[in-house]
Amino acid sequence: MQIQEIGRNARQASLELGLVSSTAKNDALNAIAQALRKNQDFILEANQKDMEAAKKKGSSTPFLDRLMLNSDRLEGMAVSLEEIAMLKDPIGEVTGGWKLANGLRINRVRVALGVIGIIYEARPNVTVEAFGLCLKAANASILRGGSLSLHSNKALIDVINQASEGKIPQNSVQLITDTSHEVAEEFMSLKELDILIPRGGEELIKLVTEKAKVPVLWAAAGNCHTYVDKDACIEMALKIVINAKTQRPGVCNAMETLLVHEDIAGQFLPKAIEALKAKDVEIRGDSKVKAIDGSVKDATEQDYYTEYEDLILAVKVVSSNQEAIEHINKYGTLHSEAIITKNYFAARKFTAGVDAACVYVNASTRFTDGFEFGFGGEIGINTQKLHFRGPMGLEALTSTKYIIEGNGQIRE
Amino acid sequence: MQIQEIGRNARQASLELGLVSSTAKNDALNAIAQALRKNQDFILEANQKDMEAAKKKGSSTPFLDRLMLNSDRLEGMAVSLEEIAMLKDPIGEVTGGWKLANGLRINRVRVALGVIGIIYEARPNVTVEAFGLCLKAANASILRGGSLSLHSNKALIDVINQASEGKIPQNSVQLITDTSHEVAEEFMSLKELDILIPRGGEELIKLVTEKAKVPVLWAAAGNCHTYVDKDACIEMALKIVINAKTQRPGVCNAMETLLVHEDIAGQFLPKAIEALKAKDVEIRGDSKVKAIDGSVKDATEQDYYTEYEDLILAVKVVSSNQEAIEHINKYGTLHSEAIITKNYFAARKFTAGVDAACVYVNASTRFTDGFEFGFGGEIGINTQKLHFRGPMGLEALTSTKYIIEGNGQIRE
Repeated sequence: MQIQEIGRNARQASLELGLVSSTAKNDALNAIAQALRKNQDFILEANQKDMEAAKKKGSSTPFLDRLMLNSDRLEGMAVSLEEIAMLKDPIGEVTGGWKLANGLRINRVRVALGVIGIIYEARPNVTVEAFGLCLKAANASILRGGSLSLHSNKALIDVINQASEGKIPQNSVQLITDTSHEVAEEFMSLKELDILIPRGGEELIKLVTEKAKVPVLWAAAGNCHTYVDKDACIEMALKIVINAKTQRPGVCNAMETLLVHEDIAGQFLPKAIEALKAKDVEIRGDSKVKAIDGSVKDATEQDYYTEYEDLILAVKVVSSNQEAIEHINKYGTLHSEAIITKNYFAARKFTAGVDAACVYVNASTRFTDGFEFGFGGEIGINTQKLHFRGPMGLEALTSTKYIIEGNGQIRE
Repeated sequence: MQIQEIGRNARQASLELGLVSSTAKNDALNAIAQALRKNQDFILEANQKDMEAAKKKGSSTPFLDRLMLNSDRLEGMAVSLEEIAMLKDPIGEVTGGWKLANGLRINRVRVALGVIGIIYEARPNVTVEAFGLCLKAANASILRGGSLSLHSNKALIDVINQASEGKIPQNSVQLITDTSHEVAEEFMSLKELDILIPRGGEELIKLVTEKAKVPVLWAAAGNCHTYVDKDACIEMALKIVINAKTQRPGVCNAMETLLVHEDIAGQFLPKAIEALKAKDVEIRGDSKVKAIDGSVKDATEQDYYTEYEDLILAVKVVSSNQEAIEHINKYGTLHSEAIITKNYFAARKFTAGVDAACVYVNASTRFTDGFEFGFGGEIGINTQKLHFRGPMGLEALTSTKYIIEGNGQIRE
């Protein structure tokens, strides 16, 4: 099918979806969850084809792990749809309302965004979860997954379509099966898209930056910092630093650079470096860090810009809270930043001065997450400043509409 | 100055602006208002140069009217700044907050967007008003006006900078004085821009669609409809239709197409056509309209897509509310749409089924406006669905930041 036709189908489905009841959407989500369980063999067989082809191509072990489906993972997808079904429907919420002097009554009502495009790499679970969130917020979705997961994605979409037939409009979700570069570029300019959400690595993000002609919501990278202030509680700082770096190093809200005030560095850093090394973390420090521990490697300017997503940590000694703030505003990616301090004024200065979606006082940056925040789901973390900044839950997949009721008002 | 340097300056100013008090911002706005009055001769002299050059180039009368400044118009700019000073400061508002089970306290706080780029044509008043709104919301602004208004814009920015020196950070507003096409393109890709707002005609919008690599908020076109339902009050419908078409035909919220239910067309259309013709409106109708009044011109498919911004109106007879909704969703630009009806169910169906920023029942579409809505100012009408849809007041120039306070929480 031509991409233009997919766009028109999605637009039509989105207009119909706006009128579908919560009950019908939830029934569809629950039916699909059941169907994923019932059609396990069919789905795993398709995934096996993808896995074999990916192995033949020499794909990396982490790649194969993301691509791989099994009984547990399918059950996880089914449960995620059932959880989405249980979330409160965001559509129809009145987010504000007032009356004008001339008697006009204005209500601002939450509505769907319309048509959402999602472009992602080889993770079949995104196919199910992204569709589920889009549907709950009454959006039609167009999915374009990686070429190496095509069999898995086709099987999942088949199951979704069969199980939801008659419950939700036709073409509520469509998969782009031509995974060529050309079609991906056409997709990024498709005028029916109200929004494009890219989920993937730097290469994808670069391509979308260059080629997209529709509004984009970034589920983007995080170069996150923790600043240990001179008035930090050292035990608390140690606990948080270890957690932020090592609890799950490969994710966007993990710490990548540790900043330490010079007045506390002599006390704190030896303990911190020892504890981090015990967790296999490679430390790269500036000259002041090396003066404390000669065994650490040199940190270059490039290190401070790097999101390692690995057991590597850049460390820098700073002479003030202000220097920490300036470092973060220069090298950070506006994601998640933390200060560890007992000092009220230091906390206040840091939270006001740092420009980021999430600024923490005395807690691990690892909490930046739609589930942790209580949104019940997440489509990604938005590090741009438009629309919903930070973790994006169901509400981020909605817009609003003003409904204005009068009795003959005209403008004088 | 190089555009990259302007970007870095603006980013620095934006970080400082986030910490400036409401009082300081308001003092600056009021001081600039006074300075505009005091430096009237200086500004009008510069404007005179632009006017002469524009006349020599053979610019149109409406263009010259938009470019022209005089004592009254300068006073209007000064008053608009004083009004912006009186608005409530949006920065710092807590837009939500809750506590997690683990004790983390989350507050979502309104902050500035950061750096706002505005690209516009030859209207010097935009220079002052856009700067004023950006400043109030603690944003640094970079302005790129049309080449034919360069002397006027330079004079206005000089006055702004002199009057606000020491009150707000340096480079809170910067003017791009190289009005070449190349620099405009560089501007649209400037990585320091948190947002670009184009204000202008179709050509500008096309250029921005093609070239922009930063998030864009559209102050865009409106192809607005009024649907007269079979259960309309005819007197009310006449009053609203005349107002929506003729009160100010050149603006984006004026009606461009009138849809009339076939059951009421015979009664309503002769009166409407007579009243519209009396106001010099040219009518273009479909065959059913022409059957009622043979003197009207033919409406083509293209007419239904056209935003005339002029005393021309397309008219179409429809056989149902549903047909009206479908026509609007096909030809409309998601701006402002109205139904005229006494029927509760018809109103409900129309407001739910029409996809637009503003949907009216029994009122003129001309009310879609930040001032009319009570926002105290307006940077444009957003017809895309991200961020703040519809009239954009001060809040649309803000983002939010999550501040998360803990006492040592780590993620398990």
